[in-house]
Parts: sequence; C-alpha cells; structure tokens
Amino acid sequence: MSSLPHFRKMVIIGVGLIGGSLALSCREKGIVSEVIGVGRGEQNLRDAVDLGAIDSYSFKAEDAVKGADLVILATPVRSLIELAREIAPHLTPGAIVTDVGSVKGPLTQIEDILPEGTFFVAGHPIAGKEKSGVKAAFAQLFQDARCILTPSRKTNPDAVNTIQKMWEAAGAKVLRMTPEAHDHIFAAVSHLPHVIAYALVNTLIELEKESDGIISYSAGGFRDFTRIAASHPEMWRDICLMNKTNILEMLERYERSIARMKSLIQSDDADGLYNEFERARQVREKL
Amino acid sequence: MSSLPHFRKMVIIGVGLIGGSLALSCREKGIVSEVIGVGRGEQNLRDAVDLGAIDSYSFKAEDAVKGADLVILATPVRSLIELAREIAPHLTPGAIVTDVGSVKGPLTQIEDILPEGTFFVAGHPIAGKEKSGVKAAFAQLFQDARCILTPSRKTNPDAVNTIQKMWEAAGAKVLRMTPEAHDHIFAAVSHLPHVIAYALVNTLIELEKESDGIISYSAGGFRDFTRIAASHPEMWRDICLMNKTNILEMLERYERSIARMKSLIQSDDADGLYNEFERARQVREKL
Repeated sequence: MSSLPHFRKMVIIGVGLIGGSLALSCREKGIVSEVIGVGRGEQNLRDAVDLGAIDSYSFKAEDAVKGADLVILATPVRSLIELAREIAPHLTPGAIVTDVGSVKGPLTQIEDILPEGTFFVAGHPIAGKEKSGVKAAFAQLFQDARCILTPSRKTNPDAVNTIQKMWEAAGAKVLRMTPEAHDHIFAAVSHLPHVIAYALVNTLIELEKESDGIISYSAGGFRDFTRIAASHPEMWRDICLMNKTNILEMLERYERSIARMKSLIQSDDADGLYNEFERARQVREKL
Repeated sequence: MSSLPHFRKMVIIGVGLIGGSLALSCREKGIVSEVIGVGRGEQNLRDAVDLGAIDSYSFKAEDAVKGADLVILATPVRSLIELAREIAPHLTPGAIVTDVGSVKGPLTQIEDILPEGTFFVAGHPIAGKEKSGVKAAFAQLFQDARCILTPSRKTNPDAVNTIQKMWEAAGAKVLRMTPEAHDHIFAAVSHLPHVIAYALVNTLIELEKESDGIISYSAGGFRDFTRIAASHPEMWRDICLMNKTNILEMLERYERSIARMKSLIQSDDADGLYNEFERARQVREKL
C-alpha cells in the first residue's frame, strides 16, 4: 500500500519511546496536522513538546480525544481496556483508535466498547523497548521493524488499511495475523525468553545470599541475560497476566527441555549433550 | 607482581582463539624466545605461523614438549587429563604446564600425573569465546580480562607466581581461588546461563515442528539467547560432563525459580510478578 494517509488531529495517550517515536515519524512524513499528548507526568509531556513530538498536551484523555480522527493507545497493555471505556463516550464519529501493546487477544473486546461509527485496530510494532521514555524517542525507530496488525472478523477493513499505511509511512513492514496466532507466537519468541531471563537473574540473587560476591564474577553469558531482564517490570507483569495461558504453555514446554538437559547430564550422555547443543547452534546460523 | 618472566620455549597445544592470542601476547611483550604450536589441522597451524602466533608446529605433543619450559594446554577441557598423561614422560625438568579450561576441580589430578620436578598450574582466563579459531586471535584479547588461577595445596607457589606474571603481562587481572570455589561460581554465572540458553533454543525448535515459521518472528530477546547458544557444542558438552554436580545443583535452583514464576502467573499475582521482575532489574543496574 503506497498512498499516504492524512490525519487532522492525532492523540497519543502514553508519550513514551513508542508513542513519542510514532508521533515524530508521522510529523516528519507530514501525515498529521496536529498532535496532542496525554499523560500523567508533566515533565515528560514538556519534554515531548520540546522534542517536537507533540504540539500540546493534556492530563485528561476524554478531553483530548474530542475531535481526533486518530487515537494511539500507548500505555501499558493491561490498562488499555479501561482506557478504551474512558474515552469511548468522547470519540468523534469516524475516529480510528489503535494500540501498540504486546498482547492482542484480550483487546478484541475494545471493538465492543467503542461506539458505532468509530473503529479499533489492534497493532504491535516490534521495536526496541530497553530504553524508555520520550527522551529516547526518534522518528526512525520503526524503520525496517515489523509491525503486526491483528484484525478480528469485526474489524473495519478500511480502518486496518489506514493504520497499515501509517506504519508503512513510519518505515515498518506490516504483517497481519489473528490475535490468537499473535499471542501464541509472541509467547514463544518474546514472552518466554523474558520470563526465563528474569528467573535466571533471580536464581543468582538467591545464590548471592549464600555465596556473597558470586554475581561479581558474571561474564558474557549472564550479562546478556541481565540485559534482557532490564526492561520495565510493569510491562512484563502486564504481559504475563494478559497472555497467561500461552505463557504457561511455553513455560511447560521449556521445563521439559530443561528436564531433558538435566537427564543427559545426570547420565553422562556425551553424544546426547553434543546433539542437543549442536542443533541449537545450527538455528543460530540460520537466523 | 611486576617483574616479567621469560620463557625459552613455549609450547601451545591447541592453537585456537585462546592459545593463539596468548602466544601473540607473549611474543608482543617479548617474554618468550620460541613458540611451537601443536594441533591436528595443518591449515590452522599454518595460519598460526602466518599470523606470527607460532614459529613452527608439530602434530605430536610428546615431541614438541621436549626441552620446553612452558606448556599451555588449550584443547577442550575433557581432553586435558589424557593429554597430561601423554606428555608427562617427555617433559623437561623445571617445565611448567598450565591450562585454560573452564572447569578446574577434576584437573587437580594432573599434579599426580606429571613427573617430579615439573609443575602444573590450573588457570582459566575469562575471555570471549564466541568466535573461535586462530584467525580470530589477537594479542589484546586478555587486556583487562580476569584470569582465575586455582592452585591446590600441592601446587608449587613459585610456578603459580610465574604463571600469574605471564597473565599479567597479557593484561589480565589475576585472581586466585580453590578449584572447588571456581567450579561452583562458574556453574552459576556461566555454565547455567549457557545450558538454559540451549534449552530455550531447543524449546523453540520443538515448537517450530508444530507451528512452521514461528522462529522467523524472533526479535531481540530470543536472538540474544541464540547468540549465547552459538558457542562450540564440544566445549559445552565437556563442561557439562566435567562440572556435573555443580551444574545439576544450579539447574535445580533454577527450576525452583521457574516454578515460582509459573505459580505467580497461574494465580494472577500482579504484585508478586512485579516484585520478581523489579528485583532482577535492580541487579542489572548494579552491574
């Protein structure tokens, strides 16, 4: 899809790395006339104005969304349904509401919350989330990144196309899949790795209580894990709660993999260990 | 310890990243007159000559070690005891033998294998092992890296001091601890992270069989794990076999950490999840 959309008034609720970068990108591409930021921390909103991400700001989402034709929900994923309820009565007919959350299944109910004549499109840009806050935002964040849209059977096709064009204008490669497929895939490739990185770091914290100083010996391997485990606790708490069933399934699969590794070590199975390590190495080479 | 040691004839058995880099460093510092490489692959040994890491090479360790005053064992850790038996009858009195393996406890028996008047010092330089082969070697690999020496009660103190000076000349910070402390600490901070990275990658490989293409969605988190799991399968097989008891202990501790995470998710314990994630994040900030 090539032709650029245009938005009269874009409202970003949650002006952090993702929301701020999207605003900067839309402005740079000239696809938006006015951008309003909504948040709780005034300093962060002022920074967003200074950075040129937003024109002005408000503390009240219900006021800000009046007259908007595009509303971006960019607060932690567990807050989105409540937020949709809050803004629903104040939306202008024709408005498209979209989000950037990492879990998609439970958000389909937002389609029933929004009034007739307004549209919800669920989205998930796959972009770096280690740094946070609007000060880390930049217009190129989504360049060559993937963005997944997860329309349900009810989702308005024109609204999906408009949001797809917005992400493409930001440089993203847009894919579409069902919310269920999204949540299963990302439980495996993103949520599981993060949860087990946290579990590893916490294993070492427990051990540190018995063997003081042990963490100071950490080299490459462990440091990579701590980097993965450095993201926002709120975000991962919300993801675990909202993608519970899939994450529990992945953790059970993973426990079987750990149990197999233990059994190979326990039985001094040199060939079995070699094969287990070798096939993992091959996957890396393919990526 | 500041004064530089000097070696007449240094023999490196296993001329890869670690052995090659140590040879380059010793030559650069002028602390060695002649360096002989021992290996099986002629091309690799020729590359080592071309790179200036070694002067000449041999395929037979027992021939090469004759007349050497320093022998570096740099082959996979499970081969070291057999290798020590092979070279023992051919060592010249006064020779110091040292190694660079990632497991130290089982190597104390090398002290009983070597003849009277020759010395074994167990060592473990903590240096990047993702790339491998002598072509990746460079003299600065150990600059500011840690190197752990694990003398036993039997180890000759002068020999330990000489090896410490060699590593310090290479730029490493040398620490000493017992072989048992080393193996317990590195089971936690290095071996466990690698084993669980392999287990994660293998979990995804199993899932890929059911959901074709799932790995292609992998983003940051998972890719970091595959990088950890890209090291040599032989090396990690050997480490698992030689540090079995400690690694099994760490895997059991880790399983408890995973079980706790599962139970928090299962019971929708938002505060518990937040705390579990938050304390891991704090450790990262301290590193």
